[in-house]
Amino acid sequence: MIDAAALDANLRTMAAALPGARLRPHVKAHKCTALARRQAALGNRAFTCATIREVEGLVAAGLGDDVLLANEVLDARRLGKLDARVTVAVDSDATIDAAAAGGVRDVLIDLNVGLPRCGCDPSDAARLADLARKRGLTVRGVMGYEGHAMLLPDRNARASLVAVAGEQLVAAHAAVGGDVVSTGGTGTFDLHTAATEIQAGSYALMDTAYAKLGLPFAEALSIVGTVVSTSTAGYAVADVGLKALGMDHGNSAVFPLHAESRDGAQVWFFSDEHVTFAPEKPVRVGERVRVRPAHVDPTMAYHERAYVADGERVVDTWLIDLRGW
Amino acid sequence: MIDAAALDANLRTMAAALPGARLRPHVKAHKCTALARRQAALGNRAFTCATIREVEGLVAAGLGDDVLLANEVLDARRLGKLDARVTVAVDSDATIDAAAAGGVRDVLIDLNVGLPRCGCDPSDAARLADLARKRGLTVRGVMGYEGHAMLLPDRNARASLVAVAGEQLVAAHAAVGGDVVSTGGTGTFDLHTAATEIQAGSYALMDTAYAKLGLPFAEALSIVGTVVSTSTAGYAVADVGLKALGMDHGNSAVFPLHAESRDGAQVWFFSDEHVTFAPEKPVRVGERVRVRPAHVDPTMAYHERAYVADGERVVDTWLIDLRGW
Repeated sequence: MIDAAALDANLRTMAAALPGARLRPHVKAHKCTALARRQAALGNRAFTCATIREVEGLVAAGLGDDVLLANEVLDARRLGKLDARVTVAVDSDATIDAAAAGGVRDVLIDLNVGLPRCGCDPSDAARLADLARKRGLTVRGVMGYEGHAMLLPDRNARASLVAVAGEQLVAAHAAVGGDVVSTGGTGTFDLHTAATEIQAGSYALMDTAYAKLGLPFAEALSIVGTVVSTSTAGYAVADVGLKALGMDHGNSAVFPLHAESRDGAQVWFFSDEHVTFAPEKPVRVGERVRVRPAHVDPTMAYHERAYVADGERVVDTWLIDLRGW
Repeated sequence: MIDAAALDANLRTMAAALPGARLRPHVKAHKCTALARRQAALGNRAFTCATIREVEGLVAAGLGDDVLLANEVLDARRLGKLDARVTVAVDSDATIDAAAAGGVRDVLIDLNVGLPRCGCDPSDAARLADLARKRGLTVRGVMGYEGHAMLLPDRNARASLVAVAGEQLVAAHAAVGGDVVSTGGTGTFDLHTAATEIQAGSYALMDTAYAKLGLPFAEALSIVGTVVSTSTAGYAVADVGLKALGMDHGNSAVFPLHAESRDGAQVWFFSDEHVTFAPEKPVRVGERVRVRPAHVDPTMAYHERAYVADGERVVDTWLIDLRGW
């Protein structure tokens, strides 16, 4: 269930802070073209994707003005077939060759700016840009994702790592050329000074992990479940389990459906189909609860559809149509 | 990717140990009617489900001889509409009322046998059975899931908890009546003496958690990925992430596609779309890897289809068609 008012406020706050092409919303966090349309309607029409399926889905939905696959692929043929401006991240000879062979025209040189994941050593960026141009590709600039900074609770700590990443991006950009410096995420959206665009996604729906950072975005997503069993031993069981939630950021939080409190119940454990929790006040079988996910991205990837609600009234149903690969 | 030979051996081993109605395969572990058909073809034709969608899907696939929803529901109307023998677990007045109101005819009284989740206090089983009969329901017997025993590494420790659960099931069965005592899982499939049927599911595809127990079942499931980036710092990155794997049982294991070794690479971390790992031998960009999941159930729930392979040759594609709710 998506709280329509919270989502709208999140999208407007971000669009005001990063208007137009200054924000390149990352659809991996919601996987929903209906939500992407809301982002586009507020002016943020250039998108970031993590999978080929997400790129294809955005283009099919008419949202293909300028789509970046911020991820490396070894087979770019599905991207090359699309009638849209598609840019792909490259960080090696092999990914450059794959982009050229697949018929993609635009690339960004992806830098490792401190997170041990994709991205070339910044000192290799100029060589890769030259190679890409030799292969006939347009090098639009550089990108780098400082994921190691994203969820640090201290804003100053995030800012320090962003500054280091920013220096690397600026230096590589000078060597690579092009007009794009793409970086960042929800936790660092207002900390970058050198970026031309920010790749934030979680800000739209948020989760309990990002909620701890004191950002100007509210949790808009709940999984609504039902209490299916109670015990005199002080616990209750609701039908929201591991197959409904991303679990890598720790336990999600369980609340009564109408709770104003932000404290939630004490979660004992999640299993495949259930959460066992100790409610603050006794609950009865049949009562509804809301579970706020700890990690929005893998949570959305489990669900077929989202119900958009004004209070408790469902006003829209959105397919989560960018799932899969 | 499902290894056809390993799956076949797992299904045959279990069907020999628990023939016909002695096994009630749990489809929650694979969510795939094509795989359920294999189980039925070996004689295990009565199934266990965790969701209403799983029951509906089995019935639509012609596998509705005798389907148990081993879970509590507060709205049974979709179950009552099915033209099949559907039994539902009940553990409270409210779930009995829901079964009767929804048009379900058969129930099992679900006992708490030590896992703090669903199931009534065993001392309440006779009263609930009487209530169910007053509501016009047929009480087929009792069930109870000893999930707290399932993954204990020591077989004797599992056997001790199974013995305690078994005593509770036998006592409640004497008070409740009916001819079904349904319990157990893959970790305890050969430890029950009082059960009429065992609800095992993970044995078919297995995972790294169950593989530690020394059971006569082999890991048949891999997520096949591609190395998309490498680093001179000793790590590599493949495109298998949190959205492709259940993560609650710890990190899954990464292997070269053709590895005979069971040691695997050292996993640094999984993120939404990637695994960062330290390969034993250097790997190159474009090389395939196989990731063995730590928890089969939430892994299958992320994927649209499985490729059944004889060695590396794909011989069939199965839809994972029982996902969702």
